[in-house]
Amino acid sequence: MKAALMRAYHEPLELVERPVPEVSGVSDVLVRVGGAGVCATDLHAIEGLMEPAGVTLPLVLGHENAGWVEAVGTGVTTVAPGDAVLVYPPYSCGLCVACRRGNDMHCVRHQFTGLSVDGGFADYVLVSERSLVPLPAGVDPVEVAPHADAGLTAYHAVRRLAHLAVPGSTAVVIGVGGVGHIALQLVRELGSSSVIAIDTDERRRRLATELGASEAIDGQDAVDAVRDLTGGGGADLVFDFVGTDETHAGSAAMLARGGTYSVIGYGGTISIPSPALVVNEHAVVGNLVGTWIDLWELLQLHAAGRIVLKTEVHPLDAVNEVLDKLREGEVTGRAVLVP
Amino acid sequence: MKAALMRAYHEPLELVERPVPEVSGVSDVLVRVGGAGVCATDLHAIEGLMEPAGVTLPLVLGHENAGWVEAVGTGVTTVAPGDAVLVYPPYSCGLCVACRRGNDMHCVRHQFTGLSVDGGFADYVLVSERSLVPLPAGVDPVEVAPHADAGLTAYHAVRRLAHLAVPGSTAVVIGVGGVGHIALQLVRELGSSSVIAIDTDERRRRLATELGASEAIDGQDAVDAVRDLTGGGGADLVFDFVGTDETHAGSAAMLARGGTYSVIGYGGTISIPSPALVVNEHAVVGNLVGTWIDLWELLQLHAAGRIVLKTEVHPLDAVNEVLDKLREGEVTGRAVLVP
Amino acid sequence: MKAALMRAYHEPLELVERPVPEVSGVSDVLVRVGGAGVCATDLHAIEGLMEPAGVTLPLVLGHENAGWVEAVGTGVTTVAPGDAVLVYPPYSCGLCVACRRGNDMHCVRHQFTGLSVDGGFADYVLVSERSLVPLPAGVDPVEVAPHADAGLTAYHAVRRLAHLAVPGSTAVVIGVGGVGHIALQLVRELGSSSVIAIDTDERRRRLATELGASEAIDGQDAVDAVRDLTGGGGADLVFDFVGTDETHAGSAAMLARGGTYSVIGYGGTISIPSPALVVNEHAVVGNLVGTWIDLWELLQLHAAGRIVLKTEVHPLDAVNEVLDKLREGEVTGRAVLVP
Amino acid sequence: MKAALMRAYHEPLELVERPVPEVSGVSDVLVRVGGAGVCATDLHAIEGLMEPAGVTLPLVLGHENAGWVEAVGTGVTTVAPGDAVLVYPPYSCGLCVACRRGNDMHCVRHQFTGLSVDGGFADYVLVSERSLVPLPAGVDPVEVAPHADAGLTAYHAVRRLAHLAVPGSTAVVIGVGGVGHIALQLVRELGSSSVIAIDTDERRRRLATELGASEAIDGQDAVDAVRDLTGGGGADLVFDFVGTDETHAGSAAMLARGGTYSVIGYGGTISIPSPALVVNEHAVVGNLVGTWIDLWELLQLHAAGRIVLKTEVHPLDAVNEVLDKLREGEVTGRAVLVP
Repeated sequence: MKAALMRAYHEPLELVERPVPEVSGVSDVLVRVGGAGVCATDLHAIEGLMEPAGVTLPLVLGHENAGWVEAVGTGVTTVAPGDAVLVYPPYSCGLCVACRRGNDMHCVRHQFTGLSVDGGFADYVLVSERSLVPLPAGVDPVEVAPHADAGLTAYHAVRRLAHLAVPGSTAVVIGVGGVGHIALQLVRELGSSSVIAIDTDERRRRLATELGASEAIDGQDAVDAVRDLTGGGGADLVFDFVGTDETHAGSAAMLARGGTYSVIGYGGTISIPSPALVVNEHAVVGNLVGTWIDLWELLQLHAAGRIVLKTEVHPLDAVNEVLDKLREGEVTGRAVLVP
Repeated sequence: MKAALMRAYHEPLELVERPVPEVSGVSDVLVRVGGAGVCATDLHAIEGLMEPAGVTLPLVLGHENAGWVEAVGTGVTTVAPGDAVLVYPPYSCGLCVACRRGNDMHCVRHQFTGLSVDGGFADYVLVSERSLVPLPAGVDPVEVAPHADAGLTAYHAVRRLAHLAVPGSTAVVIGVGGVGHIALQLVRELGSSSVIAIDTDERRRRLATELGASEAIDGQDAVDAVRDLTGGGGADLVFDFVGTDETHAGSAAMLARGGTYSVIGYGGTISIPSPALVVNEHAVVGNLVGTWIDLWELLQLHAAGRIVLKTEVHPLDAVNEVLDKLREGEVTGRAVLVP
Repeated sequence: MKAALMRAYHEPLELVERPVPEVSGVSDVLVRVGGAGVCATDLHAIEGLMEPAGVTLPLVLGHENAGWVEAVGTGVTTVAPGDAVLVYPPYSCGLCVACRRGNDMHCVRHQFTGLSVDGGFADYVLVSERSLVPLPAGVDPVEVAPHADAGLTAYHAVRRLAHLAVPGSTAVVIGVGGVGHIALQLVRELGSSSVIAIDTDERRRRLATELGASEAIDGQDAVDAVRDLTGGGGADLVFDFVGTDETHAGSAAMLARGGTYSVIGYGGTISIPSPALVVNEHAVVGNLVGTWIDLWELLQLHAAGRIVLKTEVHPLDAVNEVLDKLREGEVTGRAVLVP
Repeated sequence: MKAALMRAYHEPLELVERPVPEVSGVSDVLVRVGGAGVCATDLHAIEGLMEPAGVTLPLVLGHENAGWVEAVGTGVTTVAPGDAVLVYPPYSCGLCVACRRGNDMHCVRHQFTGLSVDGGFADYVLVSERSLVPLPAGVDPVEVAPHADAGLTAYHAVRRLAHLAVPGSTAVVIGVGGVGHIALQLVRELGSSSVIAIDTDERRRRLATELGASEAIDGQDAVDAVRDLTGGGGADLVFDFVGTDETHAGSAAMLARGGTYSVIGYGGTISIPSPALVVNEHAVVGNLVGTWIDLWELLQLHAAGRIVLKTEVHPLDAVNEVLDKLREGEVTGRAVLVP
């Protein structure tokens, strides 16, 4: 099969021929890739930053995969060849306390398709039965592949705080990229906050408005702008999909009393004097991917037509051009590679 | 009446004679003080640090007050002279959105007995009907005065996270002082975590063990000690009643995956690299006093004999000696002044 | 002023001249009525069935009132003459434990405008400051009057179960009348269930579909129909705005495992063999009006254009004709009387 | 091996020799039985009433099993021979939506050890890896076997309502038998209600008091008694472990406004006029066994010494005598059979 192989850091991926992975374990499932989303994490991996997540060389990247079941292990009972599926990227054992609570991403035997094991920038990807979410009838794999990580991450972050997104509240979404453009819709779908979107790119601000943001502002003087738009009170919720020192500081500064800062993008340092945290009863919450149920629920919303996933489709052969485009901030929504 | 007046910062309080406050507003209630708890916040006020909380000179301190109703305004319907009451320190209007949600401490017309208005280091204190919690039968004002702030703060912080204090989890309580010694009991009463108490003072560690902590350790290498005691996993909950740079850093470092750091004591700066916050799904939560319902519920627990409030009683005349003793860390539990 | 007085049961209301109520208490507020919604409860009152709710003769009915502040008592601080307001019908003291929890409708000093005291089928209505919700800018009293009870009841019932209305779930709404047509929108606004509406009237089924129901069926073989539409699984949530023996039995029978039956309309007897309740882990929940915060939040949704309140406006003089029309099932949405 | 076989309904069990079950599936685990609790459901099975739960003849009863792992299938990774384990009675697939939410007992491929497949009234029982909960160090299988169902059911019912068991609230526990005597402790351990226990047997009332009930009353005029003990207000929570027409009616009648009736025992019919349900905002909730996590958490509580499980131990050979004793109401706590 064809695969885009990361053989060395800081180099373009190599398009190579490899054997199709073999179904050997009883729970193995071989998936023929329909589409594989391209994520900023792929850029981080190429920069050599993802070894803490289990990356070793060589590796086939690609953790937002959807396609069709090609072959199954002898113990597999819930899918059959031909079924359309989305691949939930974490491997989970189903037996540890974290898994039994539904927190698959905290499984003590955690792996991650496309980071700690080979992913979907290829014709086929080998996963475990527990990693599959069957697609609702009528949903095409290419159309939903990015939900596997971008959508999942957005859903998990918003779902956890949906009880706070009450009518009359305001949520800020920082960064209207692959994850953020889904999250801003979910704030209104799972909750009822009005949404202020912040992005430095005019095209993304326009997208935010199309998708339901009541305001879309650039990053200039964002704290003052949010204070103005909320009558001085500040934002009840801030979802930060960027995660620099600057957004960390700004997010804390634009929160209302009792407000919650949800950190999804990362990279900088959060630094908050504790007197301010206490007197304002602020909360800061980190988010990591999401659960299998998160992804299943998101797919039901997608199938019901309540979420728009903005994608652009490219052939797998163009993987390096697509990575360049993403690196330069020229992708609006999410790019999907089709083998 | 006699009152201990703060006339200047950095000076001992002056014991003076003052007129008994007059009941003039329809909702005013004059309370004869039975006991008034002495809190580290009183020390901060004397150091001139509490002007952001509304302190102006001169002021009668004392925000942990209990006693008996002496006189009531014409509109007061829920208490009568002679009733034993605990004084909930925040004033709240009952009409704004925060109040209607029960979050009295976020009232838009907020005041605070003993900080922004005269408090209970005196024979009498004037408050509003909304600030009173009737004492259950058989409960003596002197015995419960410190619940008005120390207990309330502990209750609020623990109550908010009680759903996370599941059986099999571990909570760390940093600082077994006036607030912390109540909180560690509440962790087990409202939740089911086992408790590791941390305090530099041997007497307080002994108190912690008496009150149900399964371990009581000093601050040395606390992060490693907590990791050891939790089989490497870390603490699911950390309640920090100290709030220095050191405890902020240590608290974050001793958290388990998915753990929550509850900040009650304050003073330092919380500084957390966002990649660590995200990959561990940590949360950091600030806490401010508590609601009237928090105090009412705490009193029911106290009356049912399920919470021990450790107090030492002193005459009001000894207020400056008691403040000195507190400053030097020589109070175990809470000191209460009796006029 | 003009008022429609209920002087005897089973008789038309009398249009009479009465003195404008006087502002005497410190918290009194006189409201000039802009519009007053007409509710099935008014019919029950006329039939003599509402004495348990405090009805005595003679009485001015009307508990869904909105208008403008005309005069205020000396203690009123949050509204001023000229302000546009919606009247939250329960009186509440703000001081009892139920009120402090935000459950105004369980206040120990409960009254109800238009049932236990004179209501808004008149030029003016006298209420207490705690009963007012300021209208967001640009919202007209006539347009939102029915939210005071119809909307509030719908909001309260749906809000309590919104955490169960997860994507992929199905909710049934029985009865698309004044309350039900709001509730079916709220199921999708506060939650993410798909909605099956049930109504015997074709016009109401059409309204349900316009307002977002994915299916609208008549009452015939409703249990089988819901089973068919849910692939045999049944409904996760059933909201019953009718409340007869027949809807009680049908609602229980159409629930999925783990499903919840929310009872809002009432009149019949709920009869469920406990083995079925247990093996299916069903829940049955009664709902009564709602809290002040419920109404405030609903108004924010309305002002944001996310809820359609279907009304027809009539002059107060036509009150008896409107009551007849309602009795005959000829009102779609809610009728509003304008003095 | 020895086994107590149910070969016909309404007959004593037969003590027979049978082959030890074979480990054939990759996830199979053979458990050497340490102890097996005897439950009223075993009596129902013998009466022929449990066919809806999958009972067929012949069958080895016994669904409260604990012991030691004897042999494991090739795919088993989380336990090894010699490990002490408790057997969670539901089989669950781990792959369906219910399982992924943690609701194992609603698994679409549900089985139940000791009802739909052979249980633990024998030397050995064959289960699946997903059915095992490792025992914390120092916990003896015989001592905790009844937690597998009696404790689990109590835990599940109380856990779901623990957020309502706030300080100052009152819970009624009807029936202080095998399940009820655990539940009444959990009400205080997971929540903070004071407990009124109701039982017709004086020995059980004494046990209730020993285990923390503040009152223990017999069934006579129970509604009036509960009203009296709660100052007229009624019980905030009622847990009914009996489930007859009489307890169903009494439970509803003794609830406070906003109260919740939790149904665990079953057999009668719940019959409530909907006007009463609505005006009081009552809720009625059915409970079925519990989740794997429920059982894991309960075991952690047990290991921490916070729950007393009252047992009496008998040899397996005495199974029919023990069943007789249970039938006659002569077991206090739970009987455990040891092979």
